[in-house]
Amino acid sequence: MDVELKEGERIDDLQRNGYRIIQNPARFCFGMDAVLLSGFAEVKKGETVLDLGTGTGIIPILLEGRTQGSYFTGLEIQEDMAEMASRSVALNGQQEKIRIVRGDLREASRIFRGASFDVIVSNPPYMAENQGLKNPDSPLAIARHEVSCNLEDIIRESAGLLPDGGRFYLVHRPRRLADIFACLNAYHLEPKRLRMVHPFADRPANMVLIEARRGGGRFLKADPPLIVYQAPGVYHREITEIYGY
Amino acid sequence: MDVELKEGERIDDLQRNGYRIIQNPARFCFGMDAVLLSGFAEVKKGETVLDLGTGTGIIPILLEGRTQGSYFTGLEIQEDMAEMASRSVALNGQQEKIRIVRGDLREASRIFRGASFDVIVSNPPYMAENQGLKNPDSPLAIARHEVSCNLEDIIRESAGLLPDGGRFYLVHRPRRLADIFACLNAYHLEPKRLRMVHPFADRPANMVLIEARRGGGRFLKADPPLIVYQAPGVYHREITEIYGY
Repeated sequence: MDVELKEGERIDDLQRNGYRIIQNPARFCFGMDAVLLSGFAEVKKGETVLDLGTGTGIIPILLEGRTQGSYFTGLEIQEDMAEMASRSVALNGQQEKIRIVRGDLREASRIFRGASFDVIVSNPPYMAENQGLKNPDSPLAIARHEVSCNLEDIIRESAGLLPDGGRFYLVHRPRRLADIFACLNAYHLEPKRLRMVHPFADRPANMVLIEARRGGGRFLKADPPLIVYQAPGVYHREITEIYGY
Repeated sequence: MDVELKEGERIDDLQRNGYRIIQNPARFCFGMDAVLLSGFAEVKKGETVLDLGTGTGIIPILLEGRTQGSYFTGLEIQEDMAEMASRSVALNGQQEKIRIVRGDLREASRIFRGASFDVIVSNPPYMAENQGLKNPDSPLAIARHEVSCNLEDIIRESAGLLPDGGRFYLVHRPRRLADIFACLNAYHLEPKRLRMVHPFADRPANMVLIEARRGGGRFLKADPPLIVYQAPGVYHREITEIYGY
């Protein structure tokens, strides 16, 4: 179908179901973290999914392609980013399954009052607000720094929107793991599965994928490590499978 | 030197500094977890170390051999186990560097009142008290189940004995990770380093090694995964290095 591109925008092929995505490299492009989160999150047939801080819409677009979930909602605070994500959804003919909502995730439980999601996912900004931040209003700053929301906002709103047994999936930096566990604990989201992502097998993890469940017992499973490269520039087989090459 | 062996006891070679250890297979033999913890714990020159629940004394014996720590104390509740550990220390001529103390680790901060350790290590029982437990008074039950102490006892007493900046090293099961983080947080021990141990590269972790520090900022490093076997029955190079083969 035809799609209107604005200045600076480009269309990238997602190598899955023929789906494509509109991005503006001068603003923000999705990263491997979003792709790995969409591979890590389990969405069962008929389930509903909310993505907090959806940006380009990459996570609902990939999850709709990969799973049998019934409906996907992406919440995004930046108006032009939300509008661009909506155009990507239309470009892929996914309008029946994906809705992009413009709004502040700090108010997610108010925005979606009365709704209930089986699954909530988030690829939030990793960096504490004032960590080397030069331009706090730029789209890149909003995507990468805790300017518009912080870890606690995301976990609090997710706990408020998930039913008992509902699942929360997060990608973040391992260095924040103690904060993440403390915050999940405070909002009664129980960490159930954790997967470290290492650039190489002999290097520290630089991402961590976490599944938590609302309520339920304490019993965590530490998945096999996810190793990105088997050699410089050569992805491990599992990474290429997640990317769908 | 000569050493008196009691019925059922045997002497095993530790493949390090010519050190040996007395064990009684009918009671309890040390496992890979103790060896990996002794390889993970960092002990700097001149530092003092306490091992909570030392059992056979394996951890102070290995740490004395591997590090330049000045003095090592092992606390053990079972009298005959403590006595056996002391005989191993004597067997290796380590009496000037290692002391085995018989006592209840739930009272460690009282037993060692006024003392201060730079490093505390523990390879505690992993299993919750009533998890499939048949004979709660057996040495095996005391070593494996939280009969004589639980996770909170160990973390509370460690926090009480460590100075600011003092380091705590624990080996445990990944499934208890949320408990461990919550408990460390409650006693102001900050998790600083975490290493998952996987039997094979594509299998979930079955052990986790944790370093925490008393006080200090929140910043965790997730070490490369430690993979035990590169093929069935064949240890990875790093494991044989830790074992000192």
